[in-house]
Amino acid sequence: MTKQQLFEQIKEKQSFLCVGLDTDIKKIPGHLLETEDPIYEFNKAIVDATAPYCVAYKPNLAFYESEGTEGWMSLEKTVAYIRQRYPKQFIIADAKRGDIGNTSEMYARTFFDVLKSDAVTVAPYMGADSVTPFLTQPERWVVLLALTSNKGSLDFQMTADTNGERLFEKVLRVSQQWASADQMMYVVGATQGKLFEDVRKIVPDHFLLVPGVGAQGGSLEEVCRYGMNKECGLLVNSSRSIIYADQGEDFARVAAQEAAKLQVEMKEMLNKYL
Amino acid sequence: MTKQQLFEQIKEKQSFLCVGLDTDIKKIPGHLLETEDPIYEFNKAIVDATAPYCVAYKPNLAFYESEGTEGWMSLEKTVAYIRQRYPKQFIIADAKRGDIGNTSEMYARTFFDVLKSDAVTVAPYMGADSVTPFLTQPERWVVLLALTSNKGSLDFQMTADTNGERLFEKVLRVSQQWASADQMMYVVGATQGKLFEDVRKIVPDHFLLVPGVGAQGGSLEEVCRYGMNKECGLLVNSSRSIIYADQGEDFARVAAQEAAKLQVEMKEMLNKYL
Repeated sequence: MTKQQLFEQIKEKQSFLCVGLDTDIKKIPGHLLETEDPIYEFNKAIVDATAPYCVAYKPNLAFYESEGTEGWMSLEKTVAYIRQRYPKQFIIADAKRGDIGNTSEMYARTFFDVLKSDAVTVAPYMGADSVTPFLTQPERWVVLLALTSNKGSLDFQMTADTNGERLFEKVLRVSQQWASADQMMYVVGATQGKLFEDVRKIVPDHFLLVPGVGAQGGSLEEVCRYGMNKECGLLVNSSRSIIYADQGEDFARVAAQEAAKLQVEMKEMLNKYL
Repeated sequence: MTKQQLFEQIKEKQSFLCVGLDTDIKKIPGHLLETEDPIYEFNKAIVDATAPYCVAYKPNLAFYESEGTEGWMSLEKTVAYIRQRYPKQFIIADAKRGDIGNTSEMYARTFFDVLKSDAVTVAPYMGADSVTPFLTQPERWVVLLALTSNKGSLDFQMTADTNGERLFEKVLRVSQQWASADQMMYVVGATQGKLFEDVRKIVPDHFLLVPGVGAQGGSLEEVCRYGMNKECGLLVNSSRSIIYADQGEDFARVAAQEAAKLQVEMKEMLNKYL
């Protein structure tokens, strides 16, 4: 998917919501556990219920891998389902990979050729040659970690170098040599508030993938005030507060309600800041 | 496995070799492709052939994931085989994971409870709460990226902060608050040569996992001169130069020869520097 196509979807749906599929077998409704593939059945129901209100899905690899081979099977089926039924949804494999060149090439093969996702999250610590192997296919994206939503983001990402440039700023600056805004996005946590201004000074045109609204406590209003650009430039992710909004038989309907609530807020934000 | 047990194995075998199982279906001998699970058959033969000469195995997750569900199955079978037949081998899942707390918990479950490896490689970019969930089980290890073997290590890891501390040094220093040398190792690339001295100033007692000898061009002599401590403190990994030393029917015997050659060199190094 191109950046322009993504922006078209955002305008059409008046939403920049990404639904995080952090599907934990321990948290899904009991009645699904009797089905052959409970994780897939849960995801399918969540996707069908939320698709009108979002433009992207982000399966979190950890939750599938923790179920071993069966988890991988559920993941492959989930992505195939979204691809087939909702081909305009942007699919982000949240994997936070990154390794030496030949290994990153293998990961790129996994997430783009096997899983057929549009994008993969990548950690920048190992530098250029760990990231560029993910950038060889047109319309396939890297979502690079820049300033994450967790407390540990303070440990290294905020460290300033001798020129006063903080590590997340260096990552933003340097990585622009690797790809344009048509193939690169950045993870910036919703909990970072006013720091979005600093991010936008370096990457005015890039899309940002923003986790941390909802369960982690970030403010959508603040993210939009400091982070929105003229093509929206934001994909705001919500996982737990949507998919586990209700844990009974009614889970999908309640998930749809939560997604719809966020869509209404996002529509307001688009009217206000776009 | 404890640090002491690992050191005992090193002394017994006079080797600190880790064999990297970067098993690529495109590179394994043709006659194996007729078997039901070629990747597993290849690994089994490599493990049987090299076990006398090494103390650790390091499957690289990328290579298995790129085969999707089937790849995960091959990986699970490989680790189970090593566990059962060679219980004193240390198994490192080379996965380079790291995410917010609840996600890292899921990854820990994957690599320790499902896969039953001893250790997992973790990227430090997201800080303390992305790493500590891997440290909750005794005798289960984190191998944290510090100074990697690739060219991209220059992009961020060498950046000095306002106190002159380089990022890899800060990672080494700060992460010692998260776990002791009994549960934490660090990745330091063999290509970093004399920088091992700087690493040892900060982490004199920790084991270092050292990739980059062989295909990537690092020198074993240099690694040992600057990196070995009184409990050896090194696991030197070699992948491609062992497992793909011969790509015909004789591959396992030739892999054993290559591993044995490295073991002889390592024995010399232990005599010289331990």
